[in-house]
Amino acid sequence: MTMLDIKIELTTKPKEKPAPDELGFGHYFTDHMFVLDYTEGIGWHDGRIVPYQPLSLDPSAMIFHYGQSVFEGLKAYVTVNNEALLFRADRNFKRLNNSNARLCIPEIDEQYALEALKQLVSIDREWIPSAPGTSLYIRPFIIATEPNLGVHPSKNYQFIIIMSPSGSYYKEGINPVKIMVEEQFVRAVKGGTGEAKTGGNYASALKGQQIADKEGYSQTLWLDGKENKYVEEVGSMNIFFKINGTVITPALNGSILPGITRDSMIQVLKSKQIPVEERRISIDEVVEAAHQGTLEEVFGTGTAAVISPVGELKYLDEKIIINNGEIGEVSQMLYDTLTGIQNGKIEDTFGWTIRL
Amino acid sequence: MTMLDIKIELTTKPKEKPAPDELGFGHYFTDHMFVLDYTEGIGWHDGRIVPYQPLSLDPSAMIFHYGQSVFEGLKAYVTVNNEALLFRADRNFKRLNNSNARLCIPEIDEQYALEALKQLVSIDREWIPSAPGTSLYIRPFIIATEPNLGVHPSKNYQFIIIMSPSGSYYKEGINPVKIMVEEQFVRAVKGGTGEAKTGGNYASALKGQQIADKEGYSQTLWLDGKENKYVEEVGSMNIFFKINGTVITPALNGSILPGITRDSMIQVLKSKQIPVEERRISIDEVVEAAHQGTLEEVFGTGTAAVISPVGELKYLDEKIIINNGEIGEVSQMLYDTLTGIQNGKIEDTFGWTIRL
Ligand SMILES: Cc1ncc(COP(=O)(O)O)c(C=O)c1O
Ligand SMILES: Cc1ncc(COP(=O)(O)O)c(C=O)c1O
Repeated sequence: MTMLDIKIELTTKPKEKPAPDELGFGHYFTDHMFVLDYTEGIGWHDGRIVPYQPLSLDPSAMIFHYGQSVFEGLKAYVTVNNEALLFRADRNFKRLNNSNARLCIPEIDEQYALEALKQLVSIDREWIPSAPGTSLYIRPFIIATEPNLGVHPSKNYQFIIIMSPSGSYYKEGINPVKIMVEEQFVRAVKGGTGEAKTGGNYASALKGQQIADKEGYSQTLWLDGKENKYVEEVGSMNIFFKINGTVITPALNGSILPGITRDSMIQVLKSKQIPVEERRISIDEVVEAAHQGTLEEVFGTGTAAVISPVGELKYLDEKIIINNGEIGEVSQMLYDTLTGIQNGKIEDTFGWTIRL
Repeated sequence: MTMLDIKIELTTKPKEKPAPDELGFGHYFTDHMFVLDYTEGIGWHDGRIVPYQPLSLDPSAMIFHYGQSVFEGLKAYVTVNNEALLFRADRNFKRLNNSNARLCIPEIDEQYALEALKQLVSIDREWIPSAPGTSLYIRPFIIATEPNLGVHPSKNYQFIIIMSPSGSYYKEGINPVKIMVEEQFVRAVKGGTGEAKTGGNYASALKGQQIADKEGYSQTLWLDGKENKYVEEVGSMNIFFKINGTVITPALNGSILPGITRDSMIQVLKSKQIPVEERRISIDEVVEAAHQGTLEEVFGTGTAAVISPVGELKYLDEKIIINNGEIGEVSQMLYDTLTGIQNGKIEDTFGWTIRL
């Protein structure tokens, strides 16, 4: 497919843009969206950019019943030189296809999706907020639309991209979070859908999140579903531990989402000659390191916050305070490097940024 | 709430009803649907019966992204005396509330839901097919509708009931099915959402189903997610094994759906003094019994087929033929008893049927 295949219908009623300090996350949406249909026997077709509008679906559409859906999350930034750029968007569409494979959803053309996204962002360019820390959050997603209650892969899908200007994650400097290890509920298990970005994983995780909320913790740290022993990830972040000078993050084992920020952090660490290991790490090893005084830093990584330092970790009845509840040196360096590349203050030697 | 709270808007364009032999499953829908809204701070409100129609939802509605949804499946029958009845519908709304609790969805009023369903079925009474084996399949479901990309329980929901006339599961006598034990993929794990009826479980199971299809098996037999050793259930049925005169079904352990047909079968077996056990059963025990010649019958149970005898079971490289690939005596008795109660030929001594 070429870019010419994308029909464009511009809105006649542009919305008012929200004030920069009212953005929050995921509340406001830009003037346009991208839509692509899939029909069995025809394939993906009719790519179009249209005014942001409701979806009209039969109540028997499979998405309402059998959860066949995948999504992605990435961002567009305005640099200090007022250029618009995407960060590693090619990786998001690649991951979307990995999720598709697990959920029996037909593959998309990654190249085409990237071009469509670039056009969409260009059209809604004015919606990318420019205050420090703000960005345009981009949500590509695919839903099963066949109107049929049989349990089988859907014969029709829609691939849609919507975009939401989002505020700064950290309003007054980086604030370490408190996270709680979940023991009773499980997010994902090997052989399940944990490494795919699909709605069911998030629905499953709500309960743990609710428990954490009640106890005053902002996120859940999930353990593996088989032995309830090995660290997996946080609600919507991968997790890293700095123990005795080495940065350790759980290896991709099939039940963890392969975070793109995670991958970027590993590359930055390697480029700075900081030892980094991807391996299985048990919660006991983390607690043990804390007791011995060698647990130096803990942080989550994800598109939303880039880095989220962990100041307190609760496991069973123990509350572990990390680095006096302050952001650590390596966490700060990683944050500065990645946001620097994203806002154009630091040269992108990794080839991660995509100019529009 | 009283029944007076349900507003009724009848269709002005009744649809033509499909021919009885063209029904299939889940293709056709009746003239009306029931809708109930939930708004945080207000609760469930505005119950209404309206013409069957598309849902219009913002593309950021949470159901499209985070899979927060639950559903039920039950049936209305016409008896040989031309009475319409529901089968154990109260249990379905009870199970819906159990699913709601796991998915952080607000509880519904079970009594009210049952009354609403009775009204809906009464209005579309002519849609209940009456040929032997046919029925009106009923699909209550709840979806998260808040237009927001933050990961948290939705602030708005819709509870909807749609209905679909469905054909006879067995066109020419009961046909035993071939099922295949899945070893690589996992449907659910303890601590996950397996015992809830939520979309993610079905999305997760599609891959195993696809593998079974390719090998010529009609369904997947799932093992537990922790040890890949204990039998859980089939795609959309619970499973029973008759070994040496005793009927055994996996105990409800948190990752299996508590089937209402399963429960009914256990009660029928007990009433007939046939030994029945709910307990953990490993796939090795089943294979061992087959080798020793004591595996007498295997059958699945569910609302769709009532009973689905298993004629062949594949595990690893072994194909086990059960009862010469024919329906067993106990399976036949259970099928006859349950369908007899449903079509009014056998007196309902259990109190399962609900007259309209
Ligand atoms: C479950 C989960 N893990 C990890 C991540 C981090 O992934 P990424 O760095 O690609 O944003 C996310 C967020 O996208 C997530 O939802
Ligand atoms: C996963 C699963 N197990 C078991 C069943 C059987 O449940 P019931 O007998 O209530 O229909 C179903 C079907 O509803 C199901 O979807």
